[in-house]
Amino acid sequence: MSWKDYLDREQERFVSELIEFVSIPSVSAKPENAPDVQRAAEWVARRLAAAGVEHIDILPTAGHPVVLGDWLHAGPDRPTVLVYGHFDVQPAEPFELWSSPPFAPEVRDGKLWGRGATDDKGGMFIPIVAIEAMLKTGGRLPVNLKVFFEGQEEIGSPDMPDFVAAHADRLSADMIFSADGSQWAPDQPQIVEALRGLASCEIVVRGARSDQHSGLHGGGIANPAMALAQILASMKAPDGTVAVEGFYDDVCPLTEAERAFIAEVPFDPAAYLAETGALAEFGEPGYTTRERLWARPTLEVNGLTSGWQGAGTKTVLPAEARAKITCRLVANQTPERIVELLRAHVERHCPEGVAVEFQPGQARGAPFLTPRGHNSSVIAAQVLEEVYGRKPYRTRAGGSIPVMTTLLEHLGVHATMFAFGHDDENMHAPDEFFRLDTFRRGQEAYCRLLESL
Amino acid sequence: MSWKDYLDREQERFVSELIEFVSIPSVSAKPENAPDVQRAAEWVARRLAAAGVEHIDILPTAGHPVVLGDWLHAGPDRPTVLVYGHFDVQPAEPFELWSSPPFAPEVRDGKLWGRGATDDKGGMFIPIVAIEAMLKTGGRLPVNLKVFFEGQEEIGSPDMPDFVAAHADRLSADMIFSADGSQWAPDQPQIVEALRGLASCEIVVRGARSDQHSGLHGGGIANPAMALAQILASMKAPDGTVAVEGFYDDVCPLTEAERAFIAEVPFDPAAYLAETGALAEFGEPGYTTRERLWARPTLEVNGLTSGWQGAGTKTVLPAEARAKITCRLVANQTPERIVELLRAHVERHCPEGVAVEFQPGQARGAPFLTPRGHNSSVIAAQVLEEVYGRKPYRTRAGGSIPVMTTLLEHLGVHATMFAFGHDDENMHAPDEFFRLDTFRRGQEAYCRLLESL
Repeated sequence: MSWKDYLDREQERFVSELIEFVSIPSVSAKPENAPDVQRAAEWVARRLAAAGVEHIDILPTAGHPVVLGDWLHAGPDRPTVLVYGHFDVQPAEPFELWSSPPFAPEVRDGKLWGRGATDDKGGMFIPIVAIEAMLKTGGRLPVNLKVFFEGQEEIGSPDMPDFVAAHADRLSADMIFSADGSQWAPDQPQIVEALRGLASCEIVVRGARSDQHSGLHGGGIANPAMALAQILASMKAPDGTVAVEGFYDDVCPLTEAERAFIAEVPFDPAAYLAETGALAEFGEPGYTTRERLWARPTLEVNGLTSGWQGAGTKTVLPAEARAKITCRLVANQTPERIVELLRAHVERHCPEGVAVEFQPGQARGAPFLTPRGHNSSVIAAQVLEEVYGRKPYRTRAGGSIPVMTTLLEHLGVHATMFAFGHDDENMHAPDEFFRLDTFRRGQEAYCRLLESL
Repeated sequence: MSWKDYLDREQERFVSELIEFVSIPSVSAKPENAPDVQRAAEWVARRLAAAGVEHIDILPTAGHPVVLGDWLHAGPDRPTVLVYGHFDVQPAEPFELWSSPPFAPEVRDGKLWGRGATDDKGGMFIPIVAIEAMLKTGGRLPVNLKVFFEGQEEIGSPDMPDFVAAHADRLSADMIFSADGSQWAPDQPQIVEALRGLASCEIVVRGARSDQHSGLHGGGIANPAMALAQILASMKAPDGTVAVEGFYDDVCPLTEAERAFIAEVPFDPAAYLAETGALAEFGEPGYTTRERLWARPTLEVNGLTSGWQGAGTKTVLPAEARAKITCRLVANQTPERIVELLRAHVERHCPEGVAVEFQPGQARGAPFLTPRGHNSSVIAAQVLEEVYGRKPYRTRAGGSIPVMTTLLEHLGVHATMFAFGHDDENMHAPDEFFRLDTFRRGQEAYCRLLESL
């Protein structure tokens, strides 16, 4: 039987297995879900074994674990390929906005709905079933293969630099493909040539010892919620330019050539607004929206917490106010320097009467930029063109996969994203879903990729 | 038996009853506690009946109910006195900061600990037991007495203007005393001559349809949490002056005489900071802290909510951000005009790319100022001097009891606060408590007050 026939025959089972995988609430951000992240690692290890992968290990880190495995019988003249993915997921809150429960996945309209369906459980399951199809039908793979699946991508892979450094030999490869990423559209492939980096922090402003009566003390002492608003407002100009001192210092200016490449990829403002539901495009003047998303850094407030958040009025003067912030970075910014600039800014702009604590976040990653003509992206582009019948766009992505930079630093290899989700599949949002036809197409693409190496 | 002996004999029972009363989580701000507010009204009605009060009714309003009752057998030559209090309480969150559960009250160190112990369940229970003591021992009261206990003070008594207007005949009185309020210190009485008014609103800033991935969309569309911070920061200058256009227009400037009265009452900055745990006194320049608290208006953020508030990082670009705001007002500001000024300011300062919704709050009340030499406050001052052995301070309070103004408007009578809590008893905060010795002293004071009218 061909691997293609095998994929067809077993597809229903693969979907059931994916449902089982997505049911595990492996939310890496929430300490109470740590056992679920471990359960997901065990699920992956068992599934790799069933596929025929060897030397499978669940390896501990300071945080969530990693699953490694390999199949190395293609011979020394054949290339060694490392496939990357992650089995942790974003938190599913707010639960009430989901049409079906995030961890009780359902198939509707040819899509699998659930947290992690596309990012990245569906994505990372694709190479596993592709490997199984080739091993079960041909008894071998055309390349030496290694797999590297981690459990902390959604919190910025804080332990991966240490982990990859410590296991560099075991991970070493000629090419790296990431099963985390996406295609442009169901009928249009892409090669993603750049990712933004990530820096994160939390700002905690403290005033009184505990929440105070706003009548008894309002006007007498400072209000941490107002002070936090003042600090945040100092970080971004009304026009959307980041106002943190030094923030743009290390940014490589976009060349005219780069701006032209970016402009080649179609952008429909109306469709973009329809997709997000936003009122208007907004951001740093002097750049197109696509340039801002792909090649300019940004600073975003991810969350605010202070005082009374329930229904109605509670006349408190809060003791504390918190903001979570992440920045997306571009070459040649570094998360380390950006965090220090944020700290300096926050400390310099702390209003009178309150204390501010700056907490650097674990989530950090350098920006990633692949040179044009890089070997693994050339091959990936050929396979995508065969499978889709269209030349892939050369794009960038506004998101971050910090481990891409880690792999480059420690293994000396630029990873290429070879993944089959789509940006409209509500990654990181309620009603995340994964198209089952692209799930199937991705399996074929992975088989073809391994064959063409 | 004298009423005094009766109070001594029954004190233990009164404390048990107060524990039962405080156990009812009659949180008026939370819709899910509405049945508990009703239960508290029923408790009060039963307890009034047991004390010998007549014509007891639990009367509905558009929101939480009111309990009325009277004892009108003192004769037409005797004055009619209305006693006010409230049986609803503030929310108890954050629960984890309580040393004992807020609705499982405990006696420790001569204090009763629980939500509402001082504000105002302990306070309003005092006149009830005083009435009981006089009726059970002497068979009569020296005045015609009416009681008016409401269940929505902590949300700003939104339905009380309509209620008082509709029941003005039944509530009419020669003098009004409020069992909600406080004394200066356990050894120092006060007559509170002014209260600040209250205006409230919620600001809701909306951007994308749902929370978005901050990598995919950060820099492309506006961030409602940042926009909210910018709006809030526009509302207060860094020096603490309210920057809402027109906010101070209607404020009566403090006269030199008023400033001198305020300065007569001792103020210890170190003790004030120790009480609140704040780092520094802070607020509008040109006024003492006490002037700011007693006689200047303020704007306070009571709560902030947006995006991810759990542990760690979630890289969302929030769909929505909310701030709850209350203002404390002084003569001659009106809550109606302040709410309109807030609305105009918020709409004028809404940043690009987001929509803002301004929601006026139910909590509102006009500022309250009693003329010096007012009859009920003169009598109250005499009784307090007898009971404490010290002349009461003439003070103001930064908080608001909107119903005071409502009673003045509809009944034409200035109410005098005659109440026995203390401002250090963590009203509106975790670990609220009520001193049991002042509970007892308040009972005696109420009996003496009724005797001296």
